[in-house]
Order: sequence, then C-alpha cells, then structure tokens
Amino acid sequence: MKKLRVGLIGLGGRGLGLCKSTVFTDFEGVELVAICDNYQPWLDRAVECLATEKDLHPKTFTDHHDVLNKDLIDAVLIVTSWETHIPIAIEALELGIPVGMEICGCYDLQQVWDLVHTWERTKTPFMFLENCCYGQNELMLLNMVRQGVFGEVSHCDGCYAHDLRREICKGVLTHHYRWGNYVNRNCENYPTHELGPIAKMLNINHGNRFLTLTSTSSKSVGMHEYIKQKHPDHEVLMNAKFNQGDVVITTIKCAGGETITLKLDTTLPRFYSRGLEVHGTKAYYNDVCKSFFFEGDEEVEEMWDWQPNWDNREKYREQYEHPIWKEYLANGIKGGHGGMDGLVYGAFYDCVMNGYDMPINVYDAAAWMAVTNLSEQSIALGGAPMVFPDFTSGAWK
Amino acid sequence: MKKLRVGLIGLGGRGLGLCKSTVFTDFEGVELVAICDNYQPWLDRAVECLATEKDLHPKTFTDHHDVLNKDLIDAVLIVTSWETHIPIAIEALELGIPVGMEICGCYDLQQVWDLVHTWERTKTPFMFLENCCYGQNELMLLNMVRQGVFGEVSHCDGCYAHDLRREICKGVLTHHYRWGNYVNRNCENYPTHELGPIAKMLNINHGNRFLTLTSTSSKSVGMHEYIKQKHPDHEVLMNAKFNQGDVVITTIKCAGGETITLKLDTTLPRFYSRGLEVHGTKAYYNDVCKSFFFEGDEEVEEMWDWQPNWDNREKYREQYEHPIWKEYLANGIKGGHGGMDGLVYGAFYDCVMNGYDMPINVYDAAAWMAVTNLSEQSIALGGAPMVFPDFTSGAWK
Repeated sequence: MKKLRVGLIGLGGRGLGLCKSTVFTDFEGVELVAICDNYQPWLDRAVECLATEKDLHPKTFTDHHDVLNKDLIDAVLIVTSWETHIPIAIEALELGIPVGMEICGCYDLQQVWDLVHTWERTKTPFMFLENCCYGQNELMLLNMVRQGVFGEVSHCDGCYAHDLRREICKGVLTHHYRWGNYVNRNCENYPTHELGPIAKMLNINHGNRFLTLTSTSSKSVGMHEYIKQKHPDHEVLMNAKFNQGDVVITTIKCAGGETITLKLDTTLPRFYSRGLEVHGTKAYYNDVCKSFFFEGDEEVEEMWDWQPNWDNREKYREQYEHPIWKEYLANGIKGGHGGMDGLVYGAFYDCVMNGYDMPINVYDAAAWMAVTNLSEQSIALGGAPMVFPDFTSGAWK
Repeated sequence: MKKLRVGLIGLGGRGLGLCKSTVFTDFEGVELVAICDNYQPWLDRAVECLATEKDLHPKTFTDHHDVLNKDLIDAVLIVTSWETHIPIAIEALELGIPVGMEICGCYDLQQVWDLVHTWERTKTPFMFLENCCYGQNELMLLNMVRQGVFGEVSHCDGCYAHDLRREICKGVLTHHYRWGNYVNRNCENYPTHELGPIAKMLNINHGNRFLTLTSTSSKSVGMHEYIKQKHPDHEVLMNAKFNQGDVVITTIKCAGGETITLKLDTTLPRFYSRGLEVHGTKAYYNDVCKSFFFEGDEEVEEMWDWQPNWDNREKYREQYEHPIWKEYLANGIKGGHGGMDGLVYGAFYDCVMNGYDMPINVYDAAAWMAVTNLSEQSIALGGAPMVFPDFTSGAWK
C-alpha cells in the first residue's frame, strides 16, 4: 500500500500528547498530513510542537468537516472532547474514511446504536483506541488467563483511580471538556481503561456479554474542598456545584456468570491505579501490590500477611509475558504511555494498511462505552439494575 | 463487683479458639463456669483443651437452656452457629442475663427487629463481639478519621477475603455450619469484619445511617473445582451444588452521602485480607499495600507508581496509634487474633462488671447484620436496591 495519510482531529491534552510522542514518526508509511482543532490556541500549540520537536508540518484546520476528505487523508484519528467522538466517527464512516477513535463513555445508548449501525452499513474500518488493552501487565494477565493459569475466572476488578482535580479546574481556568461533565453529570464517566482489558479476558462479544449493571455514587466533596484550598478567590470555581460523585462503584454481571467491579475515583487525593484484580479458581492477581497468589499458596503461613510476596509479578514475567510484548521489547518500544500508545496506534495503522480485522472493533466500543450511560441511569434511579443492549444482535454467542 | 461468672455456648472453631486463647484467664474477676455444645464431640474436645491447657474445669452442658440460669452465670457468650445467635440472645436478654454475641449476618430482618425490641424492653446489656473493631490498624485509622486527617470521608472499602474452601467442606466431612449456608444461600454472608470498623469511622447510628444497598454475586465455581481436586471420590461433596457465588459485591449508600463497598471472597484461592480503603478529601489509605497517601503527594512522581511508599503505614504508627492500643501495648496484649480478642472480650467484661454502655450495641449489631438478608434479597432480584430499616427509629440523628 502507498503511504497512509493520517488526519488528527482534536489537539487538547491527549492530542498534544500524541504530537509529542512518536506515534506519527515511528511507523514506516504513516504520514500525519492534517491536524484540526476548533480552539485556535490548541491548534497553534500543536503546530509549534510538531514543527520544532518533530519537523512535521501538516495542514491545519479549525473545522473537522474539512479534514474528512478522502483526497486529503486515508484514515482519521478522533481525539476530541468526549461529546464529539461518536458524531465525528459516524461522519467519517459514512465517507468511507477509516476511523481510530480515542476512548470515552457514551452519553446515550442511541448514539452507540447509531455508531454500530453505521459501521454495519458501511463496513468502513473502525477501531476503538483503548491503549490499556496493550498495557504490558494487562497483556501478560490476558496471556495467563488464555493459558488457563487462573482456571475459571469468576470475578475481576478494575478502576480508573487518577486524581484529576487540577485538570477538571482547567475547564474554567483555561479550556477543558471535563469541567462540564463533572458539573452536570454523575456516572462512571471513564470506564474503559480497565474494562477493556477485562472484557478481553472474559471473552466479551466472543461467547460472553455484559448483561446488567448497578452503579452507586458517593457524595461530591473532593472538588469543592480542593478549590477552597487552591483557588479560594476564584468566584466561578468557588461557586461551582458538582453533580459528579467522588467515587462511583459499578458492578457488571456477565452472561457467563462472571462479575466485574469498576471504581471511578478522580476527585480525591490518591496515587494512580488501574486496580486490576483477577479472581479465578486456580489463581488470584492483585495489581495494587503487583502480586500473584496461586492454588496451594494457602498452605503457607504468609497467606495471612502476603507482604513477603508483594511484587512477585516480576518472577513470572519471562514465563508469561505476552508474545506481542516479547516482540515489542525485542524490536524497540514506540509511542508513549509506557509503550501502550505505540502498540494501539501501530495496530490501527497496520489493520488499515493491510485490511485486517480491527482488534478492538465497533462492538467492543459499544459494549464498553455503554457503561457510562447505564451507570448514569442506575445512579439516578438509586442503584437500580440496568440492562445492556446486545449490540451484536446475538452474534456474541 | 464479685466475680463475673461466664457461660460459653458454642464450641466449634471459634469456641475452641477462645478456649485455647487467654480470654478466660487474663481478666481478673472473670471465671468461665459453664460451657455448652449440643454436639458431644465438640464439648469433649473443649473440656480436654481447657483442662490440659488452662487448668479450667467449667460445668458442661449439651442444652443451652440449662446454661441460661442466673444462679449459674452472670453473663453469656454466644458463639454458636450463625442460625442460633439471635434466638439464644433473645432468650438470655429476657432472663436478664447480659449477652456477648459473636458475629454473623442475619437470616431475616424480623429477627433483627426482635432482637432490638427485646433489648429495648429488657435493657439487658448486649454487646456484638466484632473483634475487628479493635484491630490495631482499624483503630489507628479510626483515630485518624476522628482527628480529621482524612478530611471529609467520601468512600470506604472493606472485604472478607478468606479462602474457606477446606472449612466449608468440613460441613460434610466432620461438622460445620458453613456447609448448609454455602449450599442453600447466596448473599454477603459475613459482612461485619470490615463493615464494623467502617461504620464507626462513618458515625453510623450516631448522626449517620445506612440507607440502601445493592448486591451482585458472581457464579459459583470455586467450591466444585476445589472438591474435584481434593475429594474426587467423595460422592456427597462431588454432587453438591452451591448457591453461594464465589464473590459477592455489596455497595451501601449512607444518609451522609458516603458509599461503602464490601467484597465477600471465600471460595477461591487468595491471601487473607480485610481490604480496608478510606477515601477522604485530604488522604487515602489502602490496606493491601499498607500505605497512606496524603494531600500534596500528587505532586511527586511516585504518584504514578506508588511502590516506593508501600508499607509507609509504620512511619505514622507512633503519631496516630489509637490510645486504646497504646495502653494495651504498654500493659501487655491479651487474648488471640493479634490482640483483638482480648480487647473485645475485655471491653464486654468491663462493661458488664461496671454497668457501662456497650461500645458495640444492639443498634450497631442490627444495622451491620441486616446487610446479609438485604444482600440476599438484592441478589435474588437481580441487583435491585434494598432499603435498610432504621432500627433506631430516628434516634441515629
């Protein structure tokens, strides 16, 4: 195939991060030809970054419609605010332009159905760019689950635990879409970072599916307390009322009987964590202490205080490292975020250029993104269970 | 006060454990005068243990009605199977015999109401013997919460993560009440170990209360897989069908807006943990890595990988150790379970002998035990939210 001309729409934090990374320079045949943001300062910032740091000089746009042009690009990366991901993706799919869409939750299930139906009608390649599916540890765990090391998996936990208080305030102080979401909504607003890898472990859409969920939200006190400390004289910040609870717990039940618990924890002080836990009949993994526990370990005295075995993950690294990562480490890591970005963007480029099926397809995106809207409904109804649509219309079996 | 003559009803695992511990020998004025179990082998085993290890020779009974006699005892410890805790407690309260009741969940909310009403009518002293409320770390955390170190607490997590597969099988192999519970029920069957300490941190029944909960259960595969490995030729075990899911997730919403997540995890291989997490506006605590994170720590690079700060709890031990434990360590630890048993049984004796109010009273017991029946209902209804009765009838405010 000739060069893959790529357009990048959205130049906020994530878009700029991609410009600073090597996802546009590390891949042979990939050329960043167009960048776009409707907020001029972000566009200028990206132009400057690409020119000085990468010697890249793509065309610039403020209206994404001008980028969605097959004469200009062969594929588009959608890295905009959450609200605009799906509408722009649908436009691109209709035009036959392959889409790599960054992660988010959905605002309404109908949006997700529209995305699914558009893809089914157009069959334009679509990939959901969940980089954590390519995390080194997440892939190692997936490899172990597939090899049967965990026996039958009964339950998994994940979280998006990331102190975003400063970033959320940027919505007023500079320009950031999270502000409006935290003021107006209350939901599991960022479910896919650990749900994606867990869904792969549990074969969601390939013999299994999400059936129902319940969500419960704590009160919202973290943001205001932070603002009182950091911006006591800023009237808009000080008067803001936040709908978004500090911690949202979501429990999903799967058709195969497995359960998944997600914790969103973004407005209180804490260390970053994706909190993966895998509970199987033969083994247990806990990411907080980076440790495995295998059948038989219950005979040792340490089972009462596992501290001597914290960080035992590295002992099993060589044995269980995923082939993708073995090859990646051998050939040199690309992109950002500890290599995840290079893998997820590389996979997208590779599939578009070679016509392969996407590893994270529209049905994966639909099931994972649906969590946000369903959790919003559940919280609004006092924790009532909500049912997942079957976006595959039965094909998951 | 003259000697406190104590009767012990129930000599299974926990009852025998108490006999082996020093909770009947370490406390001046306390005398174990009667022991009882309706299963003769357990009674014989306890008699032998007490005689040889402690030189104690209490009267023995197989019918608990014979123990509930004010001429014989001044207080009773109820350490029987879960099903019989409340009925025996109600009998004792009616007779004016102070009750120390071991922990369990309830089978029906009406039982709990009956216990509350009986106490309100008789005012016979009653204490719920949740030893984890006296855990060294739990009390340290309570002390920190009370001092405001966490700011406003928004969410807590706890679990009872304890591989009980061997113990559950004892129900058939020897004699144990858990078997019937795991075969017939599906619920958060042991909620109080970490809910008790969390309830104290959140001032439940003292300005706050549990409002609602939702529970979701994973499939049940751990027990059968274990039996296939360990007892492949045992027909009863091999043919058993277990209702109890491997992992049960329960999320509680409080009147003050706080949320609590409980995880029951007892039929899969894993290390023991009570998994306490405390999320506040000023600090975070995670028991799995025994580590605090304080406001401001988000500025350090380690916030992305907290490993260098694992086990930092001990750095704060001296500063925040609870006064109860400071005194306890100075005067010598008593009882079992790392000292918790000495504190909880000592508190009970002390309150009975001196007429003090019980530190864990009938309203605490009611709210905490109610979780089991409510979780059973919620699971049966597909995760529907269930409402907590207000056992205090408004007095919690």
